[in-house]
Amino acid sequence: MTIVMYDLTGAKDRRFSPHCWRTRMAIAHKGLRCDTRPTRFADIASIGDGQQKTVPVIDDGGKLLSDSWAIANHLETKYPDRPTLFGGTAGRALTIFVQGWTTNVLHGAVVDLVVLDIHDQLDDADKAYFRASRERRFGRTLEEVQAGREGRVDAFRKSLQPLRTALGTQQWLGGDAPLYVDYLVFGAFQWARIVSRFRLLADDDPITNWFARCLDLFDGIGRRALTPA
Amino acid sequence: MTIVMYDLTGAKDRRFSPHCWRTRMAIAHKGLRCDTRPTRFADIASIGDGQQKTVPVIDDGGKLLSDSWAIANHLETKYPDRPTLFGGTAGRALTIFVQGWTTNVLHGAVVDLVVLDIHDQLDDADKAYFRASRERRFGRTLEEVQAGREGRVDAFRKSLQPLRTALGTQQWLGGDAPLYVDYLVFGAFQWARIVSRFRLLADDDPITNWFARCLDLFDGIGRRALTPA
Repeated sequence: MTIVMYDLTGAKDRRFSPHCWRTRMAIAHKGLRCDTRPTRFADIASIGDGQQKTVPVIDDGGKLLSDSWAIANHLETKYPDRPTLFGGTAGRALTIFVQGWTTNVLHGAVVDLVVLDIHDQLDDADKAYFRASRERRFGRTLEEVQAGREGRVDAFRKSLQPLRTALGTQQWLGGDAPLYVDYLVFGAFQWARIVSRFRLLADDDPITNWFARCLDLFDGIGRRALTPA
Repeated sequence: MTIVMYDLTGAKDRRFSPHCWRTRMAIAHKGLRCDTRPTRFADIASIGDGQQKTVPVIDDGGKLLSDSWAIANHLETKYPDRPTLFGGTAGRALTIFVQGWTTNVLHGAVVDLVVLDIHDQLDDADKAYFRASRERRFGRTLEEVQAGREGRVDAFRKSLQPLRTALGTQQWLGGDAPLYVDYLVFGAFQWARIVSRFRLLADDDPITNWFARCLDLFDGIGRRALTPA
């Protein structure tokens, strides 16, 4: 079984979307093959019948599905005999909290550090859209948002303490083995890694070690992804 | 089976400790009787053989145990046939993340809003210790820390978005029924409720509704606790 996944891309095949990385890791976790289709922001409206607004979108046997959380639940339900993404109903319920933290807190903090780098690695066809939509959201230029990040990165690292607490007693956020919760947080750091040389984490941070383990999963699909030269 | 629990108290039998509330709810969740012993900071050194540094401490059949997380794990292991606190190994692993968020992020934010109110409801024997230890930690007076909270409460409420995300699709953080993860977060809001009239949450916040459900659990042990007149 091969799942087709429409995967956000920048210039030079940089697959940078945190939401797409969640899904790509989830598909690999289920032991399913994934045929990714590089998709620029400008291409999203051309997927399928033209009704898609965001990626990831997957085509699983002819059925198009969007929204990374809906996709994760689809995979868990359709492939119950393969490795679980949530570890049961309680694991799934608690994953929703971590997803909320990742999306509402972590992603915003990462964007504040690398938003201009995201822009700069986009295909030219996407740059104007990205700048206009994000600058409207921020009320500032991308340059202004990213400025001074060297002075802000310590506060960012401090804000990650809940991750360190969780990884202080276990190898993965999911426990002894990775679960979807790991891919949620992985996506955020992989996003920054793919677009930027800026170091979000210190070398001796336990989160750095966990992230390296994530990069090695599934024959290193995360590590092999193209990053800034 | 009755478990004795040494429970932090202020003046007028105010049981305000967030860590003790985690444990008290966990004991009730397991359907066990709990005989609480009101304990001031000044009394902690008198528990058992005098080696205890923090509460909660429980006495479960002659064995003294401290640290709310160790106690929760003890209860889950010793009473496996009673309702689960974690919902399995994945649920337990993810609970550690939420505990980290609660302790590292939520508790700090609550303290910034009510630390002087905590002080003011303490027994006179505890006030000097509390003020000195907390002012050393903050590098400011309790009055300075709490000052201007009306202007900061909106940012606090915004920081709770991960909770709203989780409660947007389910009644409890644990899913269809409460789990230990609910008691972790409940403890933080109950702490503020017991010591302060300051409103941390807006009436129409979904977190307010969830908190009210928590207060009603186990014959309303949370709701019946004494609060400011």
